[in-house]
Amino acid sequence: MDDLLFLERDPFSPIRYAYKAQQILHSEQSEFQEILVFECAYFGRILALDGVVQLTEKDEFIYHEMLTHVVLHAHPRPENVLIIGGGDGGTLREVAKHKPVSRIDLVELDPAVIQVSRQYLPTLATSFDDPRLTISNMEGAAFLQQSTTLYDVIIVDCTDPVGPAKGLFSDDFFADVIHRLAPDGIFVAQTESLHFHRPFVTEVQHRLARMFNIADLYTASLATYAGNWWTFSVGSRRYNPRAQAQNCEVTTKYYSDDVHAHAFLPQSLYDRLIRK
Amino acid sequence: MDDLLFLERDPFSPIRYAYKAQQILHSEQSEFQEILVFECAYFGRILALDGVVQLTEKDEFIYHEMLTHVVLHAHPRPENVLIIGGGDGGTLREVAKHKPVSRIDLVELDPAVIQVSRQYLPTLATSFDDPRLTISNMEGAAFLQQSTTLYDVIIVDCTDPVGPAKGLFSDDFFADVIHRLAPDGIFVAQTESLHFHRPFVTEVQHRLARMFNIADLYTASLATYAGNWWTFSVGSRRYNPRAQAQNCEVTTKYYSDDVHAHAFLPQSLYDRLIRK
Repeated sequence: MDDLLFLERDPFSPIRYAYKAQQILHSEQSEFQEILVFECAYFGRILALDGVVQLTEKDEFIYHEMLTHVVLHAHPRPENVLIIGGGDGGTLREVAKHKPVSRIDLVELDPAVIQVSRQYLPTLATSFDDPRLTISNMEGAAFLQQSTTLYDVIIVDCTDPVGPAKGLFSDDFFADVIHRLAPDGIFVAQTESLHFHRPFVTEVQHRLARMFNIADLYTASLATYAGNWWTFSVGSRRYNPRAQAQNCEVTTKYYSDDVHAHAFLPQSLYDRLIRK
Repeated sequence: MDDLLFLERDPFSPIRYAYKAQQILHSEQSEFQEILVFECAYFGRILALDGVVQLTEKDEFIYHEMLTHVVLHAHPRPENVLIIGGGDGGTLREVAKHKPVSRIDLVELDPAVIQVSRQYLPTLATSFDDPRLTISNMEGAAFLQQSTTLYDVIIVDCTDPVGPAKGLFSDDFFADVIHRLAPDGIFVAQTESLHFHRPFVTEVQHRLARMFNIADLYTASLATYAGNWWTFSVGSRRYNPRAQAQNCEVTTKYYSDDVHAHAFLPQSLYDRLIRK
């Protein structure tokens, strides 16, 4: 049988990616989005939401390691960690590797994503039974407004900022984040491609610079997100993540001390791309 | 009218890229390959050879600056420069910016690519009338075997190593390169994606390490080459390109002194990805 061709429908990208799908493993329309899991010879299992690839088994470790370990190593003792989004479990898996972490709150709007990951993505859904974990199925902003915890690290692991994740980059949302961040807390969010979404990345950097003592940006090259050159935007109240590469304390495949330091943009590129 | 969808046919990539084409400007079957130029709202004009995108007007500067300026700045006085491939003129445009360069030989197998670039890609074809330039339309290996010049810098700017460029990474070809490289000369080649073609990149690194005093690798994130995380493989007889970031002497949009230093892989990644 010929392979199927899965052609992404990504309203946020000028290139559409096409993957050879060997088999559809799961397809559903949840309350919030279309969820698809398919098998691909090269990438293993692939999760797509509303027609856009969110992760592949082959390379998800780069994204999830970089989203978590940079800020968790920049903080000397991260105990309370909040993950907004991340229903696939990959970010949770990496956060759970950190021994100082005593509490993990995961706020995923769509419970169906967690169910699908538990069933079809066992290498990601490793930590849903971690005793430190509490899952809430609600909007990130609503959770922040009702929470009474102060977090050492808040991580936004969301879809493109055009669908359900649209509100996660507004001034109001960042104000909610600061309200629930400890006085030495650190915030990080995935913020799309420096090639394709530079105005968005710049806007987020300027917003963070207004609201945090330190705003910065680091990147990783991700083959399966259109535009690659993926950005992670950091707002920190006290610690400088660029300067604070501590000894890597967890087992990783991509992240390491020199990767931490190297991930931050060289100053000339930051000035050319963001400051203009 | 609806946009056309140009779907790459790239035998060397597990993802196929699809571009919205607004207009086909040129299409021909030359003696060597299918040449297509089309217009895209986001990327400007795009050149595709045998169905694979070679460059877009929007982002080609990153590739061409990184292919040339790293090695040209690593050499204290590059006078004789050889470009193998590069018929679109982008690499030539960047090499021509260097004042010490007194001779540029460009060896492009397919004269039709140069003609198409002159007609449709004026921002790339800026330097075909440079008095320092000699163009030869022949195979790179054949040129090296008949040449009597010793080059300070040899640059391979080729298509994927599956079509006409297949022979450009063999032991025989590298032996020809060394034969025509000055005792302190530097060789650089584009060598595909670290995500998708790691076995190929590793093979080239090991081959260079056997034949040159210094073998190294630097990368740039390129949105329009499948797999992005694009590699440039260097073989150097004397100067260490990683250590020799001199003061940038040319006008650029991406390359700079700190980009030069930053482009080389952190040691932990080199060890994890290449040395294994």
